[in-house]
Amino acid sequence: MSAPLPSTPRADGFRMPGEFEPQTRVWMLWPHRTDTWRDGARPAQEAFARVAEAINAATPVTMGAAPGELERARATLPAAIDIVPLDSDDAWMRDVGPTFVTAPGERRGVDWIFNAWGGLDGGIYAPWDADDAVAARVCEFEGAARYRAPLILEGGAIHSDGEGTLLTTEECLLNRNRNPQLDRTAIEAALREHLAVDAILWLGAGAANDETDGHVDNLACFARPGVVLVTACDDSADPQFAISRDAITRLRGFRDACGRELEVVELPMPGPLFLTAEEAAGIVATPGTQPRRAGDRLAGSYANYLVTNDRVVVPLLDERTDDLALATLAGVFPGREVVGVPGCREILLGGGNIHCITQQVPAIPAA
Amino acid sequence: MSAPLPSTPRADGFRMPGEFEPQTRVWMLWPHRTDTWRDGARPAQEAFARVAEAINAATPVTMGAAPGELERARATLPAAIDIVPLDSDDAWMRDVGPTFVTAPGERRGVDWIFNAWGGLDGGIYAPWDADDAVAARVCEFEGAARYRAPLILEGGAIHSDGEGTLLTTEECLLNRNRNPQLDRTAIEAALREHLAVDAILWLGAGAANDETDGHVDNLACFARPGVVLVTACDDSADPQFAISRDAITRLRGFRDACGRELEVVELPMPGPLFLTAEEAAGIVATPGTQPRRAGDRLAGSYANYLVTNDRVVVPLLDERTDDLALATLAGVFPGREVVGVPGCREILLGGGNIHCITQQVPAIPAA
Repeated sequence: MSAPLPSTPRADGFRMPGEFEPQTRVWMLWPHRTDTWRDGARPAQEAFARVAEAINAATPVTMGAAPGELERARATLPAAIDIVPLDSDDAWMRDVGPTFVTAPGERRGVDWIFNAWGGLDGGIYAPWDADDAVAARVCEFEGAARYRAPLILEGGAIHSDGEGTLLTTEECLLNRNRNPQLDRTAIEAALREHLAVDAILWLGAGAANDETDGHVDNLACFARPGVVLVTACDDSADPQFAISRDAITRLRGFRDACGRELEVVELPMPGPLFLTAEEAAGIVATPGTQPRRAGDRLAGSYANYLVTNDRVVVPLLDERTDDLALATLAGVFPGREVVGVPGCREILLGGGNIHCITQQVPAIPAA
Repeated sequence: MSAPLPSTPRADGFRMPGEFEPQTRVWMLWPHRTDTWRDGARPAQEAFARVAEAINAATPVTMGAAPGELERARATLPAAIDIVPLDSDDAWMRDVGPTFVTAPGERRGVDWIFNAWGGLDGGIYAPWDADDAVAARVCEFEGAARYRAPLILEGGAIHSDGEGTLLTTEECLLNRNRNPQLDRTAIEAALREHLAVDAILWLGAGAANDETDGHVDNLACFARPGVVLVTACDDSADPQFAISRDAITRLRGFRDACGRELEVVELPMPGPLFLTAEEAAGIVATPGTQPRRAGDRLAGSYANYLVTNDRVVVPLLDERTDDLALATLAGVFPGREVVGVPGCREILLGGGNIHCITQQVPAIPAA
């Protein structure tokens, strides 16, 4: 891979667009590991294929697949979806892919250090060196110059409004298992430099029992500048209740980089959902991977959708709440088709959902 | 690599000899990683070479070295020492190599699961997959059939007296970061099956601040059946004091598999020794590896020697205590030459010593 750039995006005039800005492609990774995905990963592969197809109707999808998986991916995915050989440890392109930044006439990638959501202090699996190499490979495919940020971070831990405001969580970014040598001020400085943001809005905890240590993308997100969607919970006995209430309180008190107060829109919470004994039995326990046990709470969230050109692609997770989630999103995204993808519980079994398994490539702004 | 045997050593009539029994070879690994070994690993390589030379005078040494390190290893090691290409993540052959078991006319290897001393819950580095593959490779080189034990264990966590007694520590073997699904009884059963031992003597904690979670080989060891050496500490303000006192008390209360009480011989404790700022500055901090900080206590111990044919090869660690340690060992091993190796602090900086970086191959008993 080519050497990283010696500068930072801010110094070079680049910024992180919002996800709702125009995109030229969406990257995904093909799931294969049997200690994450049950039944030989086959049900997850079919769910990933459904997600890829829903996105590809609006924005071209490129699927990275390990060399040994290319044939199976090709046999499963629609012919319109590009497949490229790309080694990875698992399939979370949001977290291992680059965060793209743009300037007039050019697009570059930020390649964060990846340690599998906590490394030797509570990470999810090891090794993670193939994952950590994914961002550089994607930059190569895109012909994008690359910054190697000196920060352990995953793409799912941040949301940008594209106008200088970043949304993140203390649970993740201030966790001792990410960058223990950096305090809040130093982490903010690194984010400002690499994303060209000015206001960093800190939520507290992420979704209940989220094994990423509380990624913001499983709790809240910008629909557009000034508008934030967040999971609400009305059961005071549920651990999500206090998390959501704290998030909503904080969101209502923020001003963004442009001085705006935020409009806060509540999404319903699916479930609560739990791993069944049958599902757990299909997962192969492996040393070096956190075990998944029957009865574990699943961190299901409708906030874990992808917004792409003309579409919002949303996980369907619970018949009792799916319709309300889709209707809420339709109200917030009037110019887009809101598409629910069935069977996304298979993705949730691995610990995330549609946003976690995708990474958009923003269009290059006119020079 | 060839498939592991479907049985267990006990079922097949094999047992783990004592280290003091005849040996045909000693295996080592060439140190190279710069986040373990300071100054580009050069001082450690020279110390490993001194150790290899001291052992090779009595027993042939084979050094495994990563393919990219073969030239440097050849240029550093005496010509009499064999070097073979062998990938590893670091250089702790005691912990990643096989534990050999013997029966009349045959020698086999036990290949434990390795998770870098705790994996995602406090392990020392990641990835560790190359390390986990070392035992199988060594068995191949030795032409030894292999058992893959369903237990996360390192060779440094156990000492055998060769007559059915095993010495180990609760801190390590009962640690939740090794085999959390197994309780003490289940772990004992696995050890009995794979080492053909009958009495398992449990010490409590290992040496103070030992990052292996208290490997027994850095605290105590059998000199021969019925005789145990153990680090003593006479400073009641030192954390080692209570550890040593507890170990000595337990040892005095044990009966071994043959019904013997144990003779307990005390070794002096070097230091206490601490990582200096200059030493710490030479170590390259890397994500995915536990940091080493100036002022960290080093788990120095004279118990971390290797006994081999005709020799006891001992780390020299502290001018104030080296002579007493050598004299104590000379008294316990009357038939062997006790050889102190200078500069073994360089090995200690990486977290272990001579016993940790070696693995003996016992001679095959007459059929």
